[in-house]
Formats: sequence, C-alpha cells, structure tokens
Amino acid sequence: MKLALIQMAYSPDINSRIVQKIEEASKRADLIILQELHQSPYFCIVEDVRNFDYAQNYQRDLEFWSGVAKRYGVVLVTSLFEKRAEGLYHNTAVVFEKDGTIAGKYRKMHIPDDPAYYEKFYFTPGDLGFTPIDTSVGRLGVLICWDQWFPEPARLMAMAGAEILIYPTAIGFLEEEPIEEQKAQLERWITIQKSHAIANGIPVATANRIGFEKDPSGNFKGIKFWGNSFILNAKGEEIARASESDEVVIYGEVSREETREIRDIWPFFRDRRIDAYGDLLLRWRD
Amino acid sequence: MKLALIQMAYSPDINSRIVQKIEEASKRADLIILQELHQSPYFCIVEDVRNFDYAQNYQRDLEFWSGVAKRYGVVLVTSLFEKRAEGLYHNTAVVFEKDGTIAGKYRKMHIPDDPAYYEKFYFTPGDLGFTPIDTSVGRLGVLICWDQWFPEPARLMAMAGAEILIYPTAIGFLEEEPIEEQKAQLERWITIQKSHAIANGIPVATANRIGFEKDPSGNFKGIKFWGNSFILNAKGEEIARASESDEVVIYGEVSREETREIRDIWPFFRDRRIDAYGDLLLRWRD
Repeated sequence: MKLALIQMAYSPDINSRIVQKIEEASKRADLIILQELHQSPYFCIVEDVRNFDYAQNYQRDLEFWSGVAKRYGVVLVTSLFEKRAEGLYHNTAVVFEKDGTIAGKYRKMHIPDDPAYYEKFYFTPGDLGFTPIDTSVGRLGVLICWDQWFPEPARLMAMAGAEILIYPTAIGFLEEEPIEEQKAQLERWITIQKSHAIANGIPVATANRIGFEKDPSGNFKGIKFWGNSFILNAKGEEIARASESDEVVIYGEVSREETREIRDIWPFFRDRRIDAYGDLLLRWRD
Repeated sequence: MKLALIQMAYSPDINSRIVQKIEEASKRADLIILQELHQSPYFCIVEDVRNFDYAQNYQRDLEFWSGVAKRYGVVLVTSLFEKRAEGLYHNTAVVFEKDGTIAGKYRKMHIPDDPAYYEKFYFTPGDLGFTPIDTSVGRLGVLICWDQWFPEPARLMAMAGAEILIYPTAIGFLEEEPIEEQKAQLERWITIQKSHAIANGIPVATANRIGFEKDPSGNFKGIKFWGNSFILNAKGEEIARASESDEVVIYGEVSREETREIRDIWPFFRDRRIDAYGDLLLRWRD
C-alpha cells in the first residue's frame, strides 16, 4: 500500500492548493490522506452558530472530492463537516474510491471539548461505530483526531481486519502555553499513536495541519497547529515524518506482510483475556 | 507516594542481596517494588518439570517476605512462583503491608509463550481479575510483565481507582538477535508503557531484571535481561530510569494530585464511547 499524507496551512484558496498537492502525490501513491476539516479554518476555536455555514454545502463538497479522486485515480480520505439534518452535524471522514464512488465514511466517535477546541458544540458523536472501510488498496481503519488518544478504537479497528489506522487531525499548541509543555504534548501525541501500532501490529498514518489560526473571540491568541504528520510501520517505527511548519506531502509504503510478521512473534491477539475485560464497557468501576 | 524499584541480576544468594537493597531503599521510600520472579533464575527459558521445585516452598516464601516487609516497615511488592495445588501454579505478585500482613495478590492474567519464554508450560492464567490492591500508601494497580503490552489491563486498573500501575518484569534480548532489533524491542517496551500512563493519566513503575542467564537446553545462548527499570509520572514522563546493566535502586515520588491535574485537562474518561466498545469482548471481529 503506497500512501501519501498532505499537510497544509489553512488559507481561503486551500481547496485548489490541496488539489495541486493531490496531483503531485498521485504520481507516487494510490492512497492519499488529508488533514481534519481540510476545507475550512479550524472553526471550533470558538462557539459561533455562523460556523455551521461551513457544513451547508456538504453535498456539493462530496461531489467536488469525488471528482478529484476520480480525476487522479486515487483512493482519497477526506475530512468534512457533514450536515445530516437541520441542527444535526458530524465530523465525518469520507473515503472515495479511485472511480469517484464513496467507499465508506466514518463519523468521529470521540468528540473533544476543551478551551479553543469546542467540538461538542458542533459535532454530534458518530453513530456508525468502529467499522473499517474497504477500498481497492486495502481495508482502512479510518478514525479522527481525538480518537487517537484512546486505545479502544484502535483495537476495535484492528480486530475488524483494518490494515492501517488513519487519523485526519487538527491539533496544535496554544501560544500561551510554555515551550516545555508544548514539547511534552507533542511527545505524548506521538507516543500514544506509536502504542496503537505496537499493541495491534498495525501501521498508522496521521495527517495534521500546520499554520497559526487566530482566536476570533480574543480569549486566546490562537492555535499554532503543530504539523508533524507521520507514517508508522506495523512495529510503530517512523517511516516518514513532516516538520511542524512546512506544507508538504510525505510518503510511505506499508504491507500486510509486515503486520503478519510482527504479530506472529508478538502475538498479543492470541492472549487477550476477553473473559476478564467485561468492565471495559463501564463508565467507571465504582 | 515515595517508591523505590530494585533491579538485580540473579545469583544463588539473591534473596539476601535483595534484602540489603530493601534496607537501603526503606530509608527513602515506603513502597518497594521487586522484579518478576526475583527469587529464582528465569527458569521459563526452558520447559523442565524440575523447575516446579521453585514453587514448592511458596508458604515459606510468603513468611520470609512478610518478615522483610515488617522488619523495614515498607509496603513490598513481591513476585513469586505460587503453588496452589499439585500441578497448579501461578505467576503471582504478593503485596505485603508495612506490618507484614498480606495486602493482596495478583495472579498474572496474560501469559506469554515464545521461544525462551515458555510461560504457558508453568503458569495457569490468573483468575483474580484486574483488581487493584489497597495499601497504606495507596491503591496499587499491580500487573506483571506480559500484561504491559495490553491496553486493556491498564485501563481496567485505572477505572478501578488504581493510583499507579506496577509491573514486575523479566524481559531481555536473545543474544542471537541483531543489535538494531534489540534496540527496537526496548524502544517498543518503553513506548507501550508510556502510553498506559498517557491514556489513563496514571504513573507507571516497572522493575526489570538484568544479567545474562544461560539457556540450559542449548537452543539459544541465553537471555540478556535488559534492565532499564523506570518510573513514569502521570503524564508518561520518565522521572527515573536505570541502566541496562547495573544493580540499582531507583526512586521516585508520584501523587494523586498530578493524576487529577492531567485528567482534568485531558479528560479521556469523560469521552469513552462505552456504547460502542462491546466488540472488545470478542476474540476477533469476523
């Protein structure tokens, strides 16, 4: 599976600039992954009903990206603001097949909400479960951003036969945070995703955005998205990683054979104590 | 909670040498953690019924370590070969209170079995579940070695109010393995355990053995136990780490307040999708 991740900063002309990168990437990869909510600024930085406007053309957005996937003959993982009904919206990854048809979609299941990431205001938690999406390049375990902090969705995708975990992402620093805290957050973010690869013997690909986006409320200066998009092999080793400030395409190749090799000698799935995991379905064991 | 980990190489006089280290550690810590199966060589390197002899004095072992805990006034996490009945043995961590009474025990739930680690021959998988042990220094999430590769036991212990995860461990390299593969294994071992701290906002303490132990079967040269015992804070940051070859005591201090702080701003427990985790209780989603 030859894949490419596109890491960009938001600008009003981002769609056409992403298409240029897809054209470039399509020469070396047949799976292309875009960052979270790549069409728009990260509007969740503030709670404002006017931002629901970004979802109003969801059907047209689908047609647009379908056309792009078909034009360049790639499997394309997009991340869109889905309007499902009036007053009902999702943060949704839509995967397009090389012929432009929709291979499947994933509605973000874990929704964050913390200062400058007010996602619970905008997105209803997903109701499609943790179901991989079958494509011509393989079975994709598509998840989104906040999901990446939880071992459960990674495990569930792997158990459903996903050949790779894919995380469109929008995460960054608040400028107010001390540099050491920024570094520590980035380190934790890399570590937790490496652990999904290690625990499940599965590659991981995460496309994050870059650039500074101002907080229009003035509560904070804004978010500096930390980039560092990466691809890990099935052992959790980095095979590609972007900088924190460049608009780039990064490439990697992963294989089912690698997953087989690592799982045969580190056979965690052989030994899971499913007879003793029942309480994982509780909120808390009290 | 002031804790100490004791990292040792096996020798026939190891018990008395461990007691010396406990005496030293008891001056600075009130929780002391020993490595896996610290009384004996790592006998699982080969399948041999004679090795069940190491479990025949389990009751006397309990009395011995009870006496040590009482003498030095510490909470002591031991790792013993438990004989439960003829032909029924467990890999069991027994925790002693400062007065020498047994605070609780944990029987290793996930049992490995791969070349030179033939544990399924010796140990029946635990039947006490993932239940933390209450002590005068706090609620301890005691797990053992192979458990450390699984996100589920870490999650379950955290959800049951454990204040720290503790892993007595015996892991090392086969000398036959290339140096890069050895480094990669060590890296994965650190990473997966950091991820338990990060995912759960909980400190982690892992005591591993050092030293070379010969494979009596001659199938392999033997195992070089890789040491690197460590303590992580609730953010997954190393606050102490031993070398790969020194017999040492390492110290750290962790607090419930740190757990509270990190969980309040990174509130993963708030957002777990327990309505969608049911398939975690399956062997595979096919």
